[in-house]
Amino acid sequence: MNIPLLNCDMGESFGNWTLGLDAEVMPYVDCANIACGYHASDPHVMRRTVALAVQHSVKIGAHPAYPDLMGFGRRSMACTPAEVEDMVLYQIGALAGICRAEGTAPGYVKPHGALYNDMARDSALLEGVLRAVRAFDANLPVMVMATADTSASRLLAEEMGMTLWFETFADRAYDTNGHLASRRLPGAVHHDQETIVAQAVSLARGEAQTTLDGTELTLACDTICVHGDNPESVAAVRAIRQALVDLEGQR
Amino acid sequence: MNIPLLNCDMGESFGNWTLGLDAEVMPYVDCANIACGYHASDPHVMRRTVALAVQHSVKIGAHPAYPDLMGFGRRSMACTPAEVEDMVLYQIGALAGICRAEGTAPGYVKPHGALYNDMARDSALLEGVLRAVRAFDANLPVMVMATADTSASRLLAEEMGMTLWFETFADRAYDTNGHLASRRLPGAVHHDQETIVAQAVSLARGEAQTTLDGTELTLACDTICVHGDNPESVAAVRAIRQALVDLEGQR
Amino acid sequence: MNIPLLNCDMGESFGNWTLGLDAEVMPYVDCANIACGYHASDPHVMRRTVALAVQHSVKIGAHPAYPDLMGFGRRSMACTPAEVEDMVLYQIGALAGICRAEGTAPGYVKPHGALYNDMARDSALLEGVLRAVRAFDANLPVMVMATADTSASRLLAEEMGMTLWFETFADRAYDTNGHLASRRLPGAVHHDQETIVAQAVSLARGEAQTTLDGTELTLACDTICVHGDNPESVAAVRAIRQALVDLEGQR
Amino acid sequence: MNIPLLNCDMGESFGNWTLGLDAEVMPYVDCANIACGYHASDPHVMRRTVALAVQHSVKIGAHPAYPDLMGFGRRSMACTPAEVEDMVLYQIGALAGICRAEGTAPGYVKPHGALYNDMARDSALLEGVLRAVRAFDANLPVMVMATADTSASRLLAEEMGMTLWFETFADRAYDTNGHLASRRLPGAVHHDQETIVAQAVSLARGEAQTTLDGTELTLACDTICVHGDNPESVAAVRAIRQALVDLEGQR
Repeated sequence: MNIPLLNCDMGESFGNWTLGLDAEVMPYVDCANIACGYHASDPHVMRRTVALAVQHSVKIGAHPAYPDLMGFGRRSMACTPAEVEDMVLYQIGALAGICRAEGTAPGYVKPHGALYNDMARDSALLEGVLRAVRAFDANLPVMVMATADTSASRLLAEEMGMTLWFETFADRAYDTNGHLASRRLPGAVHHDQETIVAQAVSLARGEAQTTLDGTELTLACDTICVHGDNPESVAAVRAIRQALVDLEGQR
Repeated sequence: MNIPLLNCDMGESFGNWTLGLDAEVMPYVDCANIACGYHASDPHVMRRTVALAVQHSVKIGAHPAYPDLMGFGRRSMACTPAEVEDMVLYQIGALAGICRAEGTAPGYVKPHGALYNDMARDSALLEGVLRAVRAFDANLPVMVMATADTSASRLLAEEMGMTLWFETFADRAYDTNGHLASRRLPGAVHHDQETIVAQAVSLARGEAQTTLDGTELTLACDTICVHGDNPESVAAVRAIRQALVDLEGQR
Repeated sequence: MNIPLLNCDMGESFGNWTLGLDAEVMPYVDCANIACGYHASDPHVMRRTVALAVQHSVKIGAHPAYPDLMGFGRRSMACTPAEVEDMVLYQIGALAGICRAEGTAPGYVKPHGALYNDMARDSALLEGVLRAVRAFDANLPVMVMATADTSASRLLAEEMGMTLWFETFADRAYDTNGHLASRRLPGAVHHDQETIVAQAVSLARGEAQTTLDGTELTLACDTICVHGDNPESVAAVRAIRQALVDLEGQR
Repeated sequence: MNIPLLNCDMGESFGNWTLGLDAEVMPYVDCANIACGYHASDPHVMRRTVALAVQHSVKIGAHPAYPDLMGFGRRSMACTPAEVEDMVLYQIGALAGICRAEGTAPGYVKPHGALYNDMARDSALLEGVLRAVRAFDANLPVMVMATADTSASRLLAEEMGMTLWFETFADRAYDTNGHLASRRLPGAVHHDQETIVAQAVSLARGEAQTTLDGTELTLACDTICVHGDNPESVAAVRAIRQALVDLEGQR
């Protein structure tokens, strides 16, 4: 068992608009997914966020998205895999440029929002993303959603010589296929910190989770997604961090 | 005497809009200034333009601008030097990301339009641009306008350990200070190919130019700006190229 | 039989980029679909295009789109009907503002590109568009695609008290359902002017068309879409106009 | 003496980003300056803000800006008066489109940020703005900054048949020319609610203000700008409102 990395979306402010408690949550995570200007962020916000990650020795990830500031990258767009490939290269490169000024470089890539979800359903889009990352730096892992059956994406990544990091969620219930249960279903989102921490530890241990449908589900878990939107979610991150430290101590 | 490099703005198409005869002019230039998405271009256009430059062994330059697609980067914007620094880093990085997919990298930087003009008047802006380029890769030269007195910018670049490439124009008349004469003045723009070629050769030889005011002006000339907007300008580029080849043969 | 109106996309330039032979085609059409800044155009281009339409007594239509300049509004975006409603209101209003300065007003609405196609498949989106137009001015007709079965959209429009103008294409082959045959199929696009004019006249007469599949198809035809992209398409528009004038004379 | 109107910038959220306590401050102001998408806002935010203003019977003003979301419209841009004219028409029109869906219409125009400041210094820009508003609806007043000498702008407005509303600030110190004293100077910004309310009442009474330089200054005051950024500024607005109600009662 490897202790999973905690990753959090960061740098999602834009110009005069502030979003996320980046400074509060940065000390407790391993990986900062930094927006690259397509769904959020701007060069100034990126610079500041990269500097903050460097200060806390947090690994920096490019967090590329569809070009949709108004929709925060959450609306699917019918981009071709070739378009996605070039957009992802552009965004990783832009973040890498900012990183150079702070003496660092991106260490992984996590697509954002609708692009993240779309590539989980469409292997041609996933391949477009992987081609972009491979062209930039074939050593960079790509975060993808852990589901019940990851064989197809594992195979594709293997053929391309790329590394995937499977990501799980501590505050969400799963369905039988290992997808996140729809937010509209009762029980789909955990609000209780104890439940969230327990799920994080259980995922880290590689234990089976009980889905909303009542089945058992075991998920690969290289990394767990956490949130820094508000004081409650930051408190949850601190508690998960402590629980993972304790878990590591027990080994 | 070094034969000056011919540089041309490229990759200024955007989405469904086409601008510039890139494929026609690429074979005759040394340096392609490739737009980075702030005043023109998009990841797809950048990819295609980088590939074209590679095919013709043309040096690739980042062509960063103010964030103003509607104004094509030609309107001054009251950005601070720190904002400009981060915007330039973002744009160089984005182009560098695209370049990696084509096995190349940016070889220099030429700011575009209003940013190019503003930094010629405002040394704090020039310093912001130079800081960005130095942070990205201190070996990359930065193209700036050759004027009558370049001592201040030379000194700044020297202190920062940076290389400047002074740029001249073959199709424009100069004023006494070595600035381009206003387009509204008669004689400010050369339309005759013979005149343009003669001025290019004269600039390459380091000869004094006669300004619109009738004074003599000698300009540093590491590179000459040429245009690929229409068949006439492409024909002029071919003629300048031939004249420079002849000049080199005479040495 | 009413002679159908010829409509053409106009004002699709943007900033420094020019697209379409608006001045050449304007004299021969009845309706100018003017881009509103989301997929193309800017306030300056809109002003110029509205003035041109006024000069030729051409009816002005708002041509709203998804917010995607880079993709020219041709990529579907997962916008909700409520988002589409507000986006369409914004764009019609913006064009109407420009129109006031030229002493005119929008006379109809034609959604653009992916939005046009999506609302043909998704009645909730169509309803969102109709709600926007009704809120702006319930007297404005909305152009929608004529297909084999238009009963559902007719019913919706009737319930909402709105007028639809059914649109056909003279240069495209249809499939059995009255959708445009995919451009990838042989025979899907007519390049021959004689064929295009013949189809326009036949559509205007309300005759059945032979689909690519060999079936017969009769389409409602309030308006025919024509193109002003290049000299060939402008020539086709002139020929169609002449043929419709002749047709009207025969009645 | 007319009791001046309280105006406040509203609708400055954008997509996923929230800014301003619009719902808290709306009940206490007379005029809501609603952003039109160029420096902030989007069609959805505009719709929501217009509905809120209608609910509280607050007059709606278009708040047009330079096209600079990243810079929140606070950076001067070298737009020509003709460009500004068309941009302002576009933005007023867009807001008017949204207003129709809520059964209302814009009642005045207040340019935002750098455009507001630039037009105070450049009469050609002011004229561009006035031309736009006149073309849209010559009855709409335009808010401009009250300064020591307003004769030039009064004359221009009179010649154009337009109404100006002079605006003052309750929380800022003035210089001798009636410009806002630079924020960098001590005493330039009032943070104390009592001082702010006292200045508002004094401005409303038409009394002379003591400038930072120690001179006396009398300002036209049709409207006072207030802020809804945070709980303190909202509390100040409530206190100013109460003081103006008391003042009106005393008359």
